[in-house]
Amino acid sequence: MTTTGPLVWIDGEVLDAGHARVSANDHGLLLGDGCFETLAVTDGRPRLLERHLRRLRRALSLLEISGVPSDEQLRAAIDELVAAHGTDAARVRVTVTPGPGASPRHRGDEPLCIVSITALPPRPGPARLTLTDWVRNERSPLAGIKSTSWSENAMILREVAAAGFDNALLCDSAGRLSECTTASIFLVIDGVILTPSLATGCLPGIIREVLLDADVATEADLHPTDLDGADEVFMTSAVHGVVPVMAVEHRVFPLDGEHTRRAMALVDSAR
Amino acid sequence: MTTTGPLVWIDGEVLDAGHARVSANDHGLLLGDGCFETLAVTDGRPRLLERHLRRLRRALSLLEISGVPSDEQLRAAIDELVAAHGTDAARVRVTVTPGPGASPRHRGDEPLCIVSITALPPRPGPARLTLTDWVRNERSPLAGIKSTSWSENAMILREVAAAGFDNALLCDSAGRLSECTTASIFLVIDGVILTPSLATGCLPGIIREVLLDADVATEADLHPTDLDGADEVFMTSAVHGVVPVMAVEHRVFPLDGEHTRRAMALVDSAR
Repeated sequence: MTTTGPLVWIDGEVLDAGHARVSANDHGLLLGDGCFETLAVTDGRPRLLERHLRRLRRALSLLEISGVPSDEQLRAAIDELVAAHGTDAARVRVTVTPGPGASPRHRGDEPLCIVSITALPPRPGPARLTLTDWVRNERSPLAGIKSTSWSENAMILREVAAAGFDNALLCDSAGRLSECTTASIFLVIDGVILTPSLATGCLPGIIREVLLDADVATEADLHPTDLDGADEVFMTSAVHGVVPVMAVEHRVFPLDGEHTRRAMALVDSAR
Repeated sequence: MTTTGPLVWIDGEVLDAGHARVSANDHGLLLGDGCFETLAVTDGRPRLLERHLRRLRRALSLLEISGVPSDEQLRAAIDELVAAHGTDAARVRVTVTPGPGASPRHRGDEPLCIVSITALPPRPGPARLTLTDWVRNERSPLAGIKSTSWSENAMILREVAAAGFDNALLCDSAGRLSECTTASIFLVIDGVILTPSLATGCLPGIIREVLLDADVATEADLHPTDLDGADEVFMTSAVHGVVPVMAVEHRVFPLDGEHTRRAMALVDSAR
């Protein structure tokens, strides 16, 4: 297969990503009003697409954005992009905004839907995390929505990278572990794989959902001190799957733990 | 003077707002990465422009966005728009993003700067506020930045409007009064005009700053129960100036209080 650069599907057309343009009046641009999904393509197929589409529809409903292409149209757009991109492995992102509007209180009725495809980034090595003082706001209307109002995460990632870490682990305002900026978090304690509940404001991660649905992981109230008793720690994201955590600040964890391997095997086989 | 529709200054060119286009790869659109200023034009002059530019530069520095047009260039762009718009009273918005980039961790080096001008919305009547359970996150890296990751406010405003209120009053995660979604909040207690400190995650509002600098208002730790002892309540924003609050939930306040009038007089004369 031949490989091309990043491509974008917009208004039913496939373009080089560099050429796609949108209105300067788009509420996504001006107000961060919108939501997105990022997913992996492996063996030429978008992974866990039904789950991603379900989460997208839930976000669109909460954000009250209507008139968006149907699931069927989005599936067709992704297939078209995968074929045009010409690689078996890729990263697809679906972004939806309400489109251009007159003012914050006045949206238009032409939502914007962009589907993009880029090369799949290489699987990262084991992660070194920092436990940040920045807080995930579990009492925000955006809690649980994969919102394009994402600047907070971008800022934390810049800070984290400058300090020599790979990602940050955040607590909610009540001091409970919530999630990493771009991944769900899992602690193995006494042989059980635990992850924070959605009450902490974390995103309902797609891989997190796969592990919970398979009863491989269980929701629990977790605090930073629980890291001291954790035998293994890993994070998950749709693009990278299960990524072992080698350290959270000074605490070091084994990389090849049996529970991490079990989660990896399950996720690698999930479709 | 003749009046035209909304205009946009972008890349040194003035266009009808409907015609201006930006890259679909802009980090402002995809990640809500960016900041903005909204200001009023009265008598053909942008109000409190130096203060707005100062706040913009601070936000750009925190967001690490460089290569943005200088203050001088922005002043010239606003003057050009005001002249082209052909009205004495208008609303100007300056929006800056890092521009297109390859991924969340890889920004490009061509920031986007859009200056737009629209009709000045009519001064609203006295406001009815609801005290919302949604929380302003004072422990976010975005606290105090007028960020384009603004969707949370848009959601709250939609909810508030559906419930028949004009705006929402938010507390921070510690339960202290912080601000309204689109305005600073002031309570008059025992003859003193009080407003929450920036430690509550509220925006450093331009009109708030004018009142504090003139020693007309004072920062204080305020809680919802303090509303019971308030003689007057008002909110402020750059576009609308001082707006009296007639009610917060069931609590009703006088509209023509002497302190509200004093604040109004000061703000109306500030340049």
